[in-house]
Formats: sequence, structure tokens, C-alpha cells
Amino acid sequence: MKKVIINGTIVTATETYEADILIVDDKITCIGKQLNRDVDEVIDAKGAYIFPGGIDPHTHLDMPFGGTVTKDDFETGTMGAAFGGTTTVIDFCLTNKEEPLKNSIKTWHDKSKDKAVIDYSFHLMIGEINEEVLEELPHIINQEGITSFKVFMAYKNVFQADDGTLFRTLEAAKELGALVMVHAENGDVIDYLTKKALREGKTEPIYHALTRPPEIEGEATGRAAKLTELTHSQLYVVHVSCQDAVEKIAEARSKGVDVWGETCPQYLVLDKTYLEKPHFEGAKYVWSPPLRDKHHQETLWRALKNGELQTIGSDQCSFDFDGQKSLGINDFTKIPNGGPIIEDRMSILFSEGVEKGRISLNQFVDITSTRAAKLFGLFPKKGTIAVGADADLVIFDPSVKRTISAKTHHLAVDYSAFEGMEVTGEPISVLSRGDFVVKNKVFVGKAGNGKFLKRAKYGEMVDVESEVKVPL
Amino acid sequence: MKKVIINGTIVTATETYEADILIVDDKITCIGKQLNRDVDEVIDAKGAYIFPGGIDPHTHLDMPFGGTVTKDDFETGTMGAAFGGTTTVIDFCLTNKEEPLKNSIKTWHDKSKDKAVIDYSFHLMIGEINEEVLEELPHIINQEGITSFKVFMAYKNVFQADDGTLFRTLEAAKELGALVMVHAENGDVIDYLTKKALREGKTEPIYHALTRPPEIEGEATGRAAKLTELTHSQLYVVHVSCQDAVEKIAEARSKGVDVWGETCPQYLVLDKTYLEKPHFEGAKYVWSPPLRDKHHQETLWRALKNGELQTIGSDQCSFDFDGQKSLGINDFTKIPNGGPIIEDRMSILFSEGVEKGRISLNQFVDITSTRAAKLFGLFPKKGTIAVGADADLVIFDPSVKRTISAKTHHLAVDYSAFEGMEVTGEPISVLSRGDFVVKNKVFVGKAGNGKFLKRAKYGEMVDVESEVKVPL
Amino acid sequence: MKKVIINGTIVTATETYEADILIVDDKITCIGKQLNRDVDEVIDAKGAYIFPGGIDPHTHLDMPFGGTVTKDDFETGTMGAAFGGTTTVIDFCLTNKEEPLKNSIKTWHDKSKDKAVIDYSFHLMIGEINEEVLEELPHIINQEGITSFKVFMAYKNVFQADDGTLFRTLEAAKELGALVMVHAENGDVIDYLTKKALREGKTEPIYHALTRPPEIEGEATGRAAKLTELTHSQLYVVHVSCQDAVEKIAEARSKGVDVWGETCPQYLVLDKTYLEKPHFEGAKYVWSPPLRDKHHQETLWRALKNGELQTIGSDQCSFDFDGQKSLGINDFTKIPNGGPIIEDRMSILFSEGVEKGRISLNQFVDITSTRAAKLFGLFPKKGTIAVGADADLVIFDPSVKRTISAKTHHLAVDYSAFEGMEVTGEPISVLSRGDFVVKNKVFVGKAGNGKFLKRAKYGEMVDVESEVKVPL
Amino acid sequence: MKKVIINGTIVTATETYEADILIVDDKITCIGKQLNRDVDEVIDAKGAYIFPGGIDPHTHLDMPFGGTVTKDDFETGTMGAAFGGTTTVIDFCLTNKEEPLKNSIKTWHDKSKDKAVIDYSFHLMIGEINEEVLEELPHIINQEGITSFKVFMAYKNVFQADDGTLFRTLEAAKELGALVMVHAENGDVIDYLTKKALREGKTEPIYHALTRPPEIEGEATGRAAKLTELTHSQLYVVHVSCQDAVEKIAEARSKGVDVWGETCPQYLVLDKTYLEKPHFEGAKYVWSPPLRDKHHQETLWRALKNGELQTIGSDQCSFDFDGQKSLGINDFTKIPNGGPIIEDRMSILFSEGVEKGRISLNQFVDITSTRAAKLFGLFPKKGTIAVGADADLVIFDPSVKRTISAKTHHLAVDYSAFEGMEVTGEPISVLSRGDFVVKNKVFVGKAGNGKFLKRAKYGEMVDVESEVKVPL
Repeated sequence: MKKVIINGTIVTATETYEADILIVDDKITCIGKQLNRDVDEVIDAKGAYIFPGGIDPHTHLDMPFGGTVTKDDFETGTMGAAFGGTTTVIDFCLTNKEEPLKNSIKTWHDKSKDKAVIDYSFHLMIGEINEEVLEELPHIINQEGITSFKVFMAYKNVFQADDGTLFRTLEAAKELGALVMVHAENGDVIDYLTKKALREGKTEPIYHALTRPPEIEGEATGRAAKLTELTHSQLYVVHVSCQDAVEKIAEARSKGVDVWGETCPQYLVLDKTYLEKPHFEGAKYVWSPPLRDKHHQETLWRALKNGELQTIGSDQCSFDFDGQKSLGINDFTKIPNGGPIIEDRMSILFSEGVEKGRISLNQFVDITSTRAAKLFGLFPKKGTIAVGADADLVIFDPSVKRTISAKTHHLAVDYSAFEGMEVTGEPISVLSRGDFVVKNKVFVGKAGNGKFLKRAKYGEMVDVESEVKVPL
Repeated sequence: MKKVIINGTIVTATETYEADILIVDDKITCIGKQLNRDVDEVIDAKGAYIFPGGIDPHTHLDMPFGGTVTKDDFETGTMGAAFGGTTTVIDFCLTNKEEPLKNSIKTWHDKSKDKAVIDYSFHLMIGEINEEVLEELPHIINQEGITSFKVFMAYKNVFQADDGTLFRTLEAAKELGALVMVHAENGDVIDYLTKKALREGKTEPIYHALTRPPEIEGEATGRAAKLTELTHSQLYVVHVSCQDAVEKIAEARSKGVDVWGETCPQYLVLDKTYLEKPHFEGAKYVWSPPLRDKHHQETLWRALKNGELQTIGSDQCSFDFDGQKSLGINDFTKIPNGGPIIEDRMSILFSEGVEKGRISLNQFVDITSTRAAKLFGLFPKKGTIAVGADADLVIFDPSVKRTISAKTHHLAVDYSAFEGMEVTGEPISVLSRGDFVVKNKVFVGKAGNGKFLKRAKYGEMVDVESEVKVPL
Repeated sequence: MKKVIINGTIVTATETYEADILIVDDKITCIGKQLNRDVDEVIDAKGAYIFPGGIDPHTHLDMPFGGTVTKDDFETGTMGAAFGGTTTVIDFCLTNKEEPLKNSIKTWHDKSKDKAVIDYSFHLMIGEINEEVLEELPHIINQEGITSFKVFMAYKNVFQADDGTLFRTLEAAKELGALVMVHAENGDVIDYLTKKALREGKTEPIYHALTRPPEIEGEATGRAAKLTELTHSQLYVVHVSCQDAVEKIAEARSKGVDVWGETCPQYLVLDKTYLEKPHFEGAKYVWSPPLRDKHHQETLWRALKNGELQTIGSDQCSFDFDGQKSLGINDFTKIPNGGPIIEDRMSILFSEGVEKGRISLNQFVDITSTRAAKLFGLFPKKGTIAVGADADLVIFDPSVKRTISAKTHHLAVDYSAFEGMEVTGEPISVLSRGDFVVKNKVFVGKAGNGKFLKRAKYGEMVDVESEVKVPL
Repeated sequence: MKKVIINGTIVTATETYEADILIVDDKITCIGKQLNRDVDEVIDAKGAYIFPGGIDPHTHLDMPFGGTVTKDDFETGTMGAAFGGTTTVIDFCLTNKEEPLKNSIKTWHDKSKDKAVIDYSFHLMIGEINEEVLEELPHIINQEGITSFKVFMAYKNVFQADDGTLFRTLEAAKELGALVMVHAENGDVIDYLTKKALREGKTEPIYHALTRPPEIEGEATGRAAKLTELTHSQLYVVHVSCQDAVEKIAEARSKGVDVWGETCPQYLVLDKTYLEKPHFEGAKYVWSPPLRDKHHQETLWRALKNGELQTIGSDQCSFDFDGQKSLGINDFTKIPNGGPIIEDRMSILFSEGVEKGRISLNQFVDITSTRAAKLFGLFPKKGTIAVGADADLVIFDPSVKRTISAKTHHLAVDYSAFEGMEVTGEPISVLSRGDFVVKNKVFVGKAGNGKFLKRAKYGEMVDVESEVKVPL
């Protein structure tokens, strides 16, 4: 099966140029001027950019939280992702302290394998490190292909691990070749502040933000970076929301510590005032970390441009406003944390970033796809447009204007966090391993077509058929 | 005329993959698996990397200095460059206050046009800004295609401009779309310290280093960055030699100031003790800024890895030890500043950087070629391996070991600054616009084959035939 | 009872001048030229400095630790203090979570009241904050006159409080007018590292230092400062041992956060290599935080000079080498932490600080006495030489040279941490509230003569008879 | 002649206490409770503070500038000073490059000797360093008692010295024992920006501020500090106006560089908007550096509290609005720089600093008097209240409220920069060497009573009769 895409402008993390792309089965096999059009299908991309399919390194699909379960599962979640130009998601596999890690991994495979419409992988949560866990890790990395671990510094008495656990996870990751991810907020302080707020009768959504100030995100980020420095290990800070955290990441990187930072669309375009919307609507904007004062947005954009932050995740974690978010109507601590972003992650970054001159077109590709592929062991199979890579491609019209709305999105959840926001640019067609998932804005994929991706160790490349064996 | 390169591993600033490259005349027209080999020439690159030709953004060829002239001119200098894997040089066109700038440009064209064996362009020195200069600048940028200006903060009473001139140059560059380059050392302090040293009878080469401490490079770098911040302009700091300067660049970048930094091979691998070599041999190592204490090397490497520095120039400026450097035998201030590096720039960065794990292979390409192309308006014609780009290519064997020596280099100058240094990796063949300049280590090019390159404005792309018109 | 001291040079935190001092009963009532010598006793201080009696803000006397009890109690401990020129100690009253705080305070009064030869007060440890504790605090501050609380961030499962407790203590201190003191090291990480070391058979004293690296003291210090910033409260970091912690204190102070830092003589003059002394002698130098690499000493001295650190405590906590330190002969974690310093605190600071030009004579007085008096609510009753103040005075001969040794010290413990160290300067006579405790190097005081001092709230002055009522 | 002051509260840089002060002739000879009142005069200071007389380290009296001469000379200027509680001024002796320094010093002695009503000394401007200047310096320091030099980094082609001159002055000061003072603004950039503004027809007073942005004060401050670090010398930055400069001073101090900073009342309470007052009234607020955006005030206050800045000078330099300031009615560069502050320096700091809780009462004394005495070689003769010191005393009523106005000030100039400002606290009586200059708000002094003060070298104490010979 051969396809050729003609007339498009190919964009990678480095290049912007016009050429044709030949796809044979699931791979890109040739890029050139005036390629032979005698193939099964000729796709005209005139006026469009061709991006490598996006990689969303931060999703929570079909995840239990606070007595409920996220509305979007691997089927509706990955459909939304695909419409947004994302062709790979890496979801967080939760674990619990009493059980072998492999059981949790099995649970996550069960949730995903017949549902995903695009390729996917898992990060693994580490809540505790003991001898059993240490024994399982080599297998998980080498056989299961799961090469990134998540440690929570917040959610006291739920997910939170202590600093000894984080330290030991960093040591193990260094030794075994994995990347440690942290949710960096000081959970002890949050625990005290939330209880205090409730004691004082402060129950509205805005108190979610007021009990988790940016200073303690900065503090926890700096702490995690320091432990990374001590262990000579590697760290990826998820969902960076504020200047305080950016400064700590930048300081560590400047000293040569191997620390990376991810932000999310919500922190780039929304702010704390959203939590004050009347009629409990603020609950739609309850994320952890919370939305911040507006001035933090400028720092985040600058950090993406400067390379102090490197990726953008969605932190997709959707709950219906009606029936799920509403669990916290009388107590903000009962509002399930999270929101639907998976579908708009790339559009927002393109529209607010590239179109408004905050980042370059090549940086857009790096941030939404290439860098995540390199950090999480998917490159060069995923994350770029090059001969030999999977034909995960997005044909993107940069001139379309559209309005984001729950009425038109493809997720199951009943609201959009960006309702009414105008964006420029839209994916028209999306291919996963050579097959259309979305074609001319119509879904043509199939649940179960997505494959689980075993990933390379941190700092290594995926062994594609080209057998290139250089270190990343 | 068609050529195809097979079996090589293509390396760009982002990718590393195996594919064939088709060259038609002077351009890359196709990259793919198993390209048709029925062409004029099939080049087997088995076991080799294929890099985009190096861009050396900092050379002084055929330049008068201190009563003498650099030994290497555009012919021998570019030959050396080509053997080292560099296919483009940007040379500094000196000016003087009494004359129209266009006269100086003409002089530089005269020096280069029948001599260069590879493509070249010019940066233009600005010693003073007055109404005549301001009137000439738009023509120079738009018609001459010279879009970068050099201001000296050192060499008092010779090249040195005052802060008002630097400020005004930054303003003009912002308005017109040029990049301002600075030699950042505090010339007033150096002037005092050198005179004082001579008064005290301190005449040996080591006093060159002792009268230009790193603190005043840091100071001047910070000053230039601050003026850039004030003018909202753009700055490129040449030949960064020390931690003091790196810190100032990093601080400015972190605040969102558009500042870039270049270092040179000599600062990465040599140190101040070389200036103490007996029998006046220290004179071979007289650069400005001077070689530093060894610990600065680690900072420079880390800054290249972190992206706090982005490029590597040679600052090629060669003088024979015998007859030129010896002018300063009794007075270190009379030693012509500079040395021969153009030929070994890429080898040293590969061997000490990639092979020793300090930077990645893709970073090597970015640092030696891609970033300079983007900063200086040569991209995507130069600086990458992509369909549509000039076929400036280096076939590089990463496994060869060789010893650098003046006996084997291709420059005219009588010594090597890296004599006896062992490096791993060597360019085997080098193509400039599709034609071999070096083939299997033999020179097959011709003086005058190199063309002058008109460059795009700062932040814009060269208009290659593909007519892609997006901003960089 | 009237005494006059003649011919001495009076030194305060600001002044150095020659004058006579008239003491009537327990107070200084007049300072002048040629005072009337028709009094009960004329004391000739020719050639000597007269300092305000030292205040040691950090002692552990008669304290249980690790299954044993410190060798020196309030009698031998305060005798040593007096010989060293210290006339006030503030000791740490330990508490435990099951008991009312008042019980612990009573215990500490019982330990001290018939034993102390100089005046004393208590800091109160806070291990947990609950409703009972919050209810007790106002009484403790207002009636008991205990206006400083200690929170431990280390000693996991023993003294360690979590960040929520620290936060709440800071809030309460802000509201009630107390100063929060922290032991700043990351106890979770230490706990992991010590267990790991033991698992690996690393049992020697040096592993005490290697399992508590300076980075985690810096981390915890920064964390405590950040929580102080958030609560707008006040913090005093005890026993700062390293550059990492100094930097965090300086950064917070520069932002206007009310953070203070204390160091100890051992960190100024001893270093990590002492822990490697053979025959288990390293155990004598087991403090927490541990001794550091030598280069940290320079930072600590500079910080005292700059005002980034403000006080010096002894952290007196003595255990016999024979029988107590030896509990850890096979396991460094069983070595009781601490050592005897109370007697040499001022001599070492004078000899190494003033004599060697690192700090000025007036800074010496500020650091050893005045600043502690102001921070801990003892000023102007204690901490200076001024009309109306308690006649706590030290007649100090700056020219004497002596060698520190356990053979000559006045403590009960069987070794000196500074054995063999030569110091310049020695207290000759010491008065507490007008009475000699030490006279011409002979003890003339009496156990039980020391009185418990109720202290003013943070930021306020003690109400001496002069009835001056201005804020500090 | 004996006087005793009773019932007052004595305030020094360290203490606040109630006691009587005995003055014999010009000296304080005794401080005590209930001193004998059988003396020539008993002064009742009930309800008042007694401060050491203020030291204004920065005045320009009878100074030519821009074709005119300051309105206030040594008579009216020191009268104003005395009314404000200042008993010593240190004035800037201007020099010019063609003349021996001694001539300029003589000129300044001529201006002052029969006019000053309080004691005074001189700083000496250094515009150029050559062999003649170097030869004169030892005499100036040792015989003339002038131990501080001023270098201007601004006022291009008028006062401005280049960095080589600053460097050499720092070297000489280090060797000879003097303190180097800098006016830190980048004069080259200001020169360009002012000419550009005029070219663009921007002539109003506000352009004075807009052509001297805070960034270039920060830049020059950092540059001067760096040269101080290189020369191991000592630096005092005059009239710090902004956060940019404070940060540079703090950074240098934190590294152990001997740098000190002075601010002025105008920068603490006025801001840039004053320059926009209509009817050319903005000209009254033309200082260099200029008034800044309001947020800088908070930084300056915090820096005084933190000790990042240490002193307050008036930069008294008064010109009539009518006839002098008006020279610049059509061209802001012709407005004479400066204003009348000498009389209100202490009142403003007391009212806005102490009364509003920004600094403590003891800090007030340190900032207005003690620290300047120590830095400029006047201590302990001046700068404190201690036995043996000159009886320079201020009896200050902290409860009086008054409104600053040109109608009531004692200067010759026709306006007040603080017209209409309400302040709390006022000097009631002022003594200079035991004699009243102001008594119950009435002038009782005499022109010519003030004496020239020869000062000690940097870091040394004045040799008062007590003959204390310790280093400062």
C-alpha cells in the first residue's frame, strides 16, 4: 500500500520545506521533489503544513479518582486526541502499595487495548519503593518497555510519596535507565491549608487555588531538582504552572542537572480568575496545580521559547460538570481534579504560540512531538518526519479559524475548558502508521487500531528497522 | 548531473537515520530508502555519518593586524576549512572611520572572490555610527546581503567603539533586521593593565592573559546584554571564553533577552598554562580573549549542552610563529592576536564533544552548522540536510583516529595550535553545492569556486527556490 | 554594693572606647571618665577589653539522647560557659507528643534551677501542633516568658515534624509574637541514606557525614524560608554549616523575608576530615549537621562579616568519648550526636575571627551577645554595656595565648573537640548581675545563682526598670 | 564649661535607654543615672530622643554647575543642615584636569572656612589619574586628611572618567587607604539618548528621566563593583536610586566584595511622575540619577532594612526654580541637576522609616550618622553618643507633626522639593562640640564656628584623646 502526500510544507523541529512524502505501508520511505505519483493514493496538502503526529506525554484516561472515574476512556479520549492532531498518548498507570506493579500494568492494558484509536504507552506510578518493587523494575523496563516512573509529592495520604521514596526512585532510574516524573507541590502544606480553609467555612472552588499557592510548587520543584542533582539522575517535572517552578528548573539546568519541564495549555491561556466563575462554574477549572495569576503565563511562554521548559502535555483528566465536578458543590476538596484538554492541546499552542509570534513553527513541532519522543524513548519511530519513521502525520491548515466548544468536540465529557475560545489553525487529516484516522475532518479510524508502544530506555533510541545503533 | 549517496547515516540537528540522498546539480532533491542508482555517480558512505557542511561564523582571512597580515588568505584558509568539513565561512570585513562602508566591502570582495574554494559571506565591523553610516546601512542589508555587524568593546584606540555606538548599532539593527556581534572585553581596563605590566617589565606572553582577566569579559558581556535589553534588539557574543561571560548570557536569555553566544575550540580544550610555554612558544596561544584557567572549560561544555551557548566559531586568524608572532618577542602587546583553528573546529568538537559524551550527535550538527545558518540568514539553503537545500555535505568517518599537526594541515601558517592532539573522527569527502571539494581526503576543488552569499535579515529565511515564505 | 571597673576598653556592637564603669548592685549605672573610686571594689582592667557577657542561644544541657544523657548538666555546663565568657544560655526544652507542654517545661525547670551558675532561659520544641498545643501557647509566651519554638526537619521518627506542622508553627508564632527555630536537614533523605549505608556495611563515623550531604541542608533551609515567606512569619535557622544553607538564607533576606542564621564554632574551624580520624576518634566530631568540606568555612566567615549570618551558638551537647560516643563503635547511627563547645565558643570566634581580621571587634560583640539578646527578647537587660543594663561583663585579655584542652576545661565531659588548638585571648574575670562568677580565672560563683529569664516577645524589648517602651 | 542633659532617651546604633549625659567643654565625659546637676547648664530632654548629630556624607555647597552656582553655600547650607539635625557635612571638592589637586582643595577651604556653622570635611573628585595626581595623593590623605575620592561614570565630556581611570583610582585607594565613591550611570548611553531626545524635539523635564533609565544605573553599578572586586579595593556607590543598582550591590557584598551603598530621601519618597508636573514645575525634581517608578521605593527601603544599603546622603545641590532651573525651560539638558534636601534628610527618614515601621530606631541612627562616621574616618569622634566622643547631639521630639515648606526652611533656595509633605518628629535643639547651634528651634550658632575635619584612613578610627588604637 503506497501513498504520496504532495504540495504540503513539511515542518520538523529543525526544518520547514516543500517536498512530497512517500508512505509505504506504515512507514515514510522517501521525501523528495516531484515523487512518482503512480501510487495507491495521492493526497494533496496544498496550503497545509505537514507536522509529525503529536505526542501527548500526560493523559489520564479511564482513571478512578475521588470516588468517580474520568469520563473519557481510551476510546473517546484517543478519538479526541486524534482530532486534535495527536497520534500517540502516554497514559499514567496508577499503582497501589499492596499490589505487585505488574497487576496494575495488566489493568491498564485491559483498559486500553481494544479501545485506543492511536498508539499509546504507559508511565508507571511509584508510590513506595521496597524490595519487591525493586525486583520488578528491571522487567518492567526491559520487557514491558515502560521506562518512566511518576512520583507524587502531593495528594497526602493518597498518592503522595515521601522524599526518601523519591530519592530512591531517582537512584533506581539512574541505574536502570528510566526517567522520573514528579508532580511537584508540597502536599503537607496543602493538606494543612485545605483543612484550615474548610474549618473556616471556605468551600468554593476558588479556595482550591488559594490553598495551593505557587510558592509551594516552586519549593517542591526545587526540592525534586536537588535530589536529582544528588543522585545524578534525570527528572521530568509535569504540569509546570508558574514562574516559581520555572526558576527552579532553569537554575538546575544551568548547573548541568538533567531536569526537564512540561507545561499544559490551561496554564498558558487560563488564569486563576476562572475559578471565581459564579454558579459553581469555577469547578470546571479545578486542576492541580491550580490556575495561577495571569502574569505567570508570560513566564511560561518565555520558558518554552528559551528552552527552560521543553514539552506540553494535556494532563487530560475529564469529569462531567454535571454529576462529577458537582460532587464538590459544598466542599472544593471533593471536586475531582482535572479537565478535558487532549483535543485542543496542539491547536492552542499553534494559535497562541506560533500565530502570535511567541514560539517558532519549528519549536511548535519540537514541543508538541519531537522532544517528548526523545525523552520517552519513542524516537525516531515517532516524533518526526524522516525516512524510516512511522507515518504518523498531521495535515494542518494554518488559516482556518474555529471556535472551541463542547458542542463540537469529540470527547464524551459534557463541557470544554476552552469553550468559546477562537483559534487559528486546525488538523484536517491525521494518519497513524500510514492509515487515516481522521480524513477531511471525519473520523475514519477504529477502536483497537492503536498499538501499545514499548519504549527505549532514557537516553536511547528506539530500534527501528534501520538498525541505527547510536545513542540518542 | 545526478549523484546519489548510499549507505550513510544522515545526521541533522534533530534526526539520525539511514537513507540515500539524491543530488541533482547543486541541490538535494530526494532522500529515501533504496533510491534509484542509475545516476552519474554513486557514492558509498558505508560506516560514515553524513553531516550538513559546517558553517564557520567567525574567520579573519587576509586581515591586516598590528602591522602584519594574517598568513592564511581566502584560498589557503578556505582550503583548510574544507578539509575540516566546513563549507561556508563568514569573514569579518574591517572598516575604518574615515571611509564609506562600501569601500571596505569592496576591499573584502576583492580579497575573496577569486580565491575561496567554498561559499562565504561577510560580517561588517561598525567602529562609529554617524549620519553617513546610518544612510549606508539599509543598502548594505538589502542589496549587499550583509546582515550582521560587529562592534568591538576592546582594542582601545584601534577597533574599540564606545557604549553609545554600541547602543545606536543595536537600535539600528533592531530597526533594519540585523544581528549585532560583540567582542566583549573591557578595553579601557585592558589598556591600563597592559601599560602597567609593560611599565613593570612584564613582557612575556603569559602577561597577555594576566592583563585580560575573565571578570572583565563577564563585565563587558553583561553590559552588552543590558544594552540589548534596553533596545529590544538582538546580540551575538563572539568567542565566549569563560564562566563569567556564560553566566551573563544565561541570565539575559532567561529574562527573554535575545542574546546568543559562540565559543571556540581553543577555549574548550586549551588553557592558560599554554601561555607559559618556554622559548616564547606561549605566543602561539595568544588569543583575545585569552585562554583561561582549566575549570572554565567545563562551564563552556555544559553551556553548549544546555543551550546557553549555541555555536562554535574558529576565530581563525593565523600568523606564523616565525616572523609574525615573533614581533612580540620583547613585548607581549606586539604579538599578533589569533591562531589557526579553521581546519580543526569540527574535528575537535566531534572528538571531545560527541565521542566523550558531552554533547549529542544532533547537537554537534546544530552547533557546527544549523544554528549559525539560522542566526545568520543562510537557512535552509545552508545548515541542514533536507530536500531543497544546497548539497553541502560532509562524509565523516567517526572511527578514524588521527593526530593534528602542522605537518599535515592544509593551511599556510607554520604551526598548529593543537599540535599533537589526538582526535577521533575525520571528514573523508566534502561537497559544496553538489561538487566535491575534498574527495577521499584529496583536494579536488578550485580557488574561485566559492560564491559570495547574500544573507536574509535576522529572523528570516533565505528565499530558496521552494519559495517557502514563513518566518524562520 | 558598688564596684567600679577602671582602665578597660569598653566594646559594644557599635563602640570601642576607654571609660570607667560603675556598678551598683546588679546594674550598670554610670559610664564615664574618671569616675569616683570611693566604692566597695575597684577593678583594674588595664590592657583588657570589657565585653557584654556572652549569650549562647543554643545549648543542650542534661538532655537525654539516643539512650543516654549529655554528660554536662546545668551545673558543669554553665560553669564551662562562664569560664568562656558566656553569662546567659538558652537551652532547648524537649517535649513529647503525648504530654502537655507545661510538663516538659516543668521538667526543664527542675533540671536547671538549683544548678545554673549564670542566668538561663528555654526554647521550646514543637513536635506536633494540635488543638491542645495551640491552647497552651499563649500562656507559655505571656506567662512563662518562653518566646521561641524549635521545629526539627530531621531525625525521622524521633523529633522530626512534617511541613504542615512547621507551617502551622510559623503561623502561630506570627500571631503570638514568637520566633521559630529550625534544624534544617531533609530527614527523609537522611533516613534512607543512613539505612542504605548500614546495609552496605558502612559503619564508621565518616558515614555520618556522607549520609547527610550539604545539599539537603540547603534544601531544607530553603524550604523553611519559603514557608516563612508564605506565612509572613519569622525564622531562625540553627547551626548553619554550609554554603548551600547560607545562600538560601541570603536569598530570603534579600527578598525581605525575616530569616536569621546561626553558625557554630565547629563549622568555622573544623572540617569533614576530622571524622576520618583513626581508632574511632572520628566519633568525637559527630554533629548534625556534620562537619563539611573545608571550603565551606570561608563562606561561613564571609556570611558573618556580611550579616548573612548573625549569631553563633555552641550547640553544646556533650557525651563522653568513653562510654557514650562508644555506643556507636559498630554503627555510626548509634553515636550520640554533639560535642562540648560551650566553653570555647567566644575564644574561638575572637581568635579566629577578630585576631585574623575576618570580623571586626564590634561585630564580635554583636555576634556573640547583642544580636542574640535582641532576637530572643533579652535586650537591653542583657547583650550590651549600657547604663541600666545588667552588669553581665567579661574582662578579656586579648593578648594571652593558650591551648584548648580537656585537661584544663571546666566541663565534665572527657574530651575536647578542639584539643590542642591555640587561641589568642581569654576571659580573665566574668561578672553576672554585678557578682563575680570567675575572678582572675578562678571560679567564685555558686550553683543556683543563675536565674531563669522570662523573655520579651519577638521584636520587643525587655521591660527594664528604665521603663523605656519603644519597640525594639 | 559643663552641661548635663537629663530625662532624655539616648539612642545609638545599638542601644535605646534612659540616662543623663554630662558634657565637659566639647566632649561627652559621662553617661549615667542621676548625674550631678550642679553644672553650668541643665538641659531637660523629657519626652525626647537624643541622637548623635547626623552626618551628611553627600553635599554640594557653593558649587558651579552648568553655568550657574548652587544657591546655597556653606553658610545657608550648613544652617539648613543644623536645623535638620545634621552636625557634619562632607562636601564634594571638584577638581579639573589641568590643575594640581591642591589648588582645588584650597578653593574649597576658601569657600567654607568662615561660613560653616557646623563641622565639615571634603571628598575629592578624581577626573583623571596621571603621574602628577599619583604624586599628590599621599599628601592629600596623610596631611590634608581627605580620604575619599569621587569618580564619575556619567556626565560625558564634563566630569566623566573612563574605566581605566576608575580602575587606577581603586588601585591607588587600596594602597593608600581611601574609599572610592562613584556616580554610577553609563554616561555614554545617556549622552546618546539625550541628544536623540533633543533631536526628536523632546525637551520637557520628564525626558531627563526617560533618557537615564534604571537599567544603566544598574549596569554601571555592577561594572564599578566588578572593578572593585578585581582590585581588592573598596567602593561606595552614591545616590542609589533603583532596584537594578541595589541588586548589583547586594550581589557583590554577598561575594565578599567591599561595596557600600547610599540612597537619598528623594528616591525614598518621590517618584518619576513628579517630573511630569505642569508649568515646568517638573524641573524642581531633576536629579541624576532621576526619580524612578514608584515600585523602586520599596526595594530601597528593604535594602536599608536588610543592610544592602547602609547610609543616606542628601545630595544637597540647590538651584532656584526661578532663574536657575529655568535655564532649561526649552531644553531639559540645561536644567541644573539637583535640589534642596539637606534640611529634611533626617526628618524624612525618621517619619517615613521609623514611624512607619520600615526601619528600627537604632537603624535610623546607624544610617544617618554612625555608619557614615565609620566609613569616612570620623568615628568615634563623630557618629555616636559615647564617653569621649564630641558632644554633637540632637534633641529630637518624636511626637511633633509639621509640614515641610520653603516658607519655613532655612535655606536660601526658593523652593522645597518636599513642599507640603507632613512629617512626624523634629529636632528641637542641636549641639555641635558642646555648643548649641539650634536651641529650641532658634538659630544660636555662628558662621565660621564649624571646623574642617581631617579624617582617618579607610578602616581606621580617628585618634581621639582616649588614644584607643584598635582598628575599626
